Amino acid sequence: MKIAVLGGDGFVGWPTSLHLSSAGHDIHILDNLSRRWIDTELGVQSLTPMDSIQERTRIWHEQTGRRIRFHLIDLARDYELLKNWLAAERPDAIVHFAEQRAAPYSMKSDRHKNYTVNNNVNATHNLLNAMVETGLDAHLVHLGTMGVYGYSTVGAAIPEGYLPVGIETISGGTARQEILYPSNPGSIYHMTKCLDQLLFQFYAKNDGLRITDLHQGIVWGTHTRDTAVHPQLINRFDYDGDYGTVLNRFLIQAAIGYPLTVHGTGGQTRAFIHIQDSVRCIQLALDNPPARDSRVEIFNQMTETHRIRDLAKLVSGMTGADIAWLPNPRKEAPENELVVESAKFRELGLAPTRLANGLLSEIVDVARKFAYRVDRSRVPAVSAWTRDLAPLINADPEGRRLKSVS
Amino acid sequence: MKIAVLGGDGFVGWPTSLHLSSAGHDIHILDNLSRRWIDTELGVQSLTPMDSIQERTRIWHEQTGRRIRFHLIDLARDYELLKNWLAAERPDAIVHFAEQRAAPYSMKSDRHKNYTVNNNVNATHNLLNAMVETGLDAHLVHLGTMGVYGYSTVGAAIPEGYLPVGIETISGGTARQEILYPSNPGSIYHMTKCLDQLLFQFYAKNDGLRITDLHQGIVWGTHTRDTAVHPQLINRFDYDGDYGTVLNRFLIQAAIGYPLTVHGTGGQTRAFIHIQDSVRCIQLALDNPPARDSRVEIFNQMTETHRIRDLAKLVSGMTGADIAWLPNPRKEAPENELVVESAKFRELGLAPTRLANGLLSEIVDVARKFAYRVDRSRVPAVSAWTRDLAPLINADPEGRRLKSVS
Repeated sequence: MKIAVLGGDGFVGWPTSLHLSSAGHDIHILDNLSRRWIDTELGVQSLTPMDSIQERTRIWHEQTGRRIRFHLIDLARDYELLKNWLAAERPDAIVHFAEQRAAPYSMKSDRHKNYTVNNNVNATHNLLNAMVETGLDAHLVHLGTMGVYGYSTVGAAIPEGYLPVGIETISGGTARQEILYPSNPGSIYHMTKCLDQLLFQFYAKNDGLRITDLHQGIVWGTHTRDTAVHPQLINRFDYDGDYGTVLNRFLIQAAIGYPLTVHGTGGQTRAFIHIQDSVRCIQLALDNPPARDSRVEIFNQMTETHRIRDLAKLVSGMTGADIAWLPNPRKEAPENELVVESAKFRELGLAPTRLANGLLSEIVDVARKFAYRVDRSRVPAVSAWTRDLAPLINADPEGRRLKSVS
Repeated sequence: MKIAVLGGDGFVGWPTSLHLSSAGHDIHILDNLSRRWIDTELGVQSLTPMDSIQERTRIWHEQTGRRIRFHLIDLARDYELLKNWLAAERPDAIVHFAEQRAAPYSMKSDRHKNYTVNNNVNATHNLLNAMVETGLDAHLVHLGTMGVYGYSTVGAAIPEGYLPVGIETISGGTARQEILYPSNPGSIYHMTKCLDQLLFQFYAKNDGLRITDLHQGIVWGTHTRDTAVHPQLINRFDYDGDYGTVLNRFLIQAAIGYPLTVHGTGGQTRAFIHIQDSVRCIQLALDNPPARDSRVEIFNQMTETHRIRDLAKLVSGMTGADIAWLPNPRKEAPENELVVESAKFRELGLAPTRLANGLLSEIVDVARKFAYRVDRSRVPAVSAWTRDLAPLINADPEGRRLKSVS
């Protein structure tokens, strides 16, 4: 298949592009390289020394003989470029990662809120609009988030997208319906993925587009089989308070002798997936497109759930790291249960990579290797969810002065 | 109260501004005048000869001694201007009409789809963002649409925003919850109002904003008590296939001897409200704000439901007009039931203006008076919902050549 990977220069986009290229597909990365610009804005860098996208694709070709093409297009702004590209190249499938993907970044200031909404909504809508306009019957696979469901304890398992409910009818009976799970996003970023869901629902219904939405858990790990092929294919690995994801941050913090930063009680339960499973799930989704004119296909792309404090204790026990209990900059339930249905990917053949198999210490080793690149003042999470919470976020576990870019 | 009316130059915005000014409030209209630009784009004009906003507000002052201030601000683009204005003026309440509001216009071409999404989402989000940033505890009243609920027959009454459902729990019991009614928009325009709902839900939850969302039916009529005070205060009255609303179009068509244009079977059931009731509802909503930190307050702002073909027959019987049965440019159910709960406004004192009381012929008289301003070639609805439907929309009931701007 000819596959367009939108946002293919990012943390999951890059290993996905390699994985699909390895599998024999013809890969085109469309990216505006905004994530690299945001590193510049925040004055931070990937723990791992990433090469440019041009150099990465050159090395990939040198190592494997396979070509990955790169196209600099801003999906949210360059509608005509995108439309012309789709009309000319007519990909069979499109994987859509091209959104601002950090909740803390999305809550940093009014400018960051506006950017996240404007960028994410327009990127997704421009894409759908251009697909209809060019009459393109490509299968669209989108990276959503488990965060669309919210993290409140309801006593029911979270289904894969659609919730069966009973509704009282006028005649006094009960009508059974399957509805899109009521969304309850916890940040502007998560909210944009809820908006995406409504865009997908409309375009599937009105124009018959074939769409799969993957509600992904928190990704951990950094290497995949393909990024390990050559040092210059190494993946991005974020440790900062905005873009670093919680388990990866704990592992890096342990590696550099920094206390593990737990916010609030650490009673937040979240869903997780290893990056190797993530790229495998995307391949499985591509291999199993929904029929034209059917509803949006939704998978929960996660393999296990954990409480944050349990993860901190696990990493602390493994490495001897201290745990710092910090005020929570997020407005969220201090504790929540999370039971998630995720049978669909296992039925398609996913063999999950679990936390307990040595990969954790491999990641600590990666982090130790590149520890010299860490700016310790960038480790704390300083984006506050509300004006009331902002004054509480005043402590660096190491007593350094906090930096802010907003 | 000091009230900002965003989009106060529009079809409902203008009479609302006058109504609230009459009631003694200090009114500030913020508008980018986009609706006037769209008239220019489409090569069409209001049936009634509207004056400029500057002249309208001057006449209002001359007639009543009351001032309405006008500020040219584009909400979707001028975030900093908006924020500074809110910070300086600190209104007590905000009425938000400032969105592209025609379903056919939103489906006209890819450019119109993008414009509608970009404009409406950014206008609403910029406003919410600026309210939080300026720490403004104003009550926000937004004009939504009955279209967020969709028009499929489910056998249950449409509640005012929130639907009680039963959800099966892990322990085998049934959890009762009230959820935001699952949205099912029928056009890009309607979809943007569904996106707005999620924005409101998030900002009410995260920042405690006080928000009321009014899901309005199709507005009919043109005069209100206040617009009738002076000829130059006359309201906009649209007859074209994009912006004209169905009952007003039938009345105008009857007045100019044009066949009443029914699309499909005319079995579509829709909700209606007279423009005088519309402005009264907005006042009632302003007088009854939700508490801080409560969920978004939602009203169904409609007073009756009718099938389109029944309205056509009513107007035909009253005026002798022919009915033209035309292909439907919309992708929608050919027939639907619609039972809507709308007790809340009546409990607050709304005395509905019904269809059957002579107002219909008053509107025909207005239309006859200004019939000389009509471009008959602009009467057909030519925006098709899909590529498949477009070729069917090839007939003008009078056999004229169809005009298209897309």
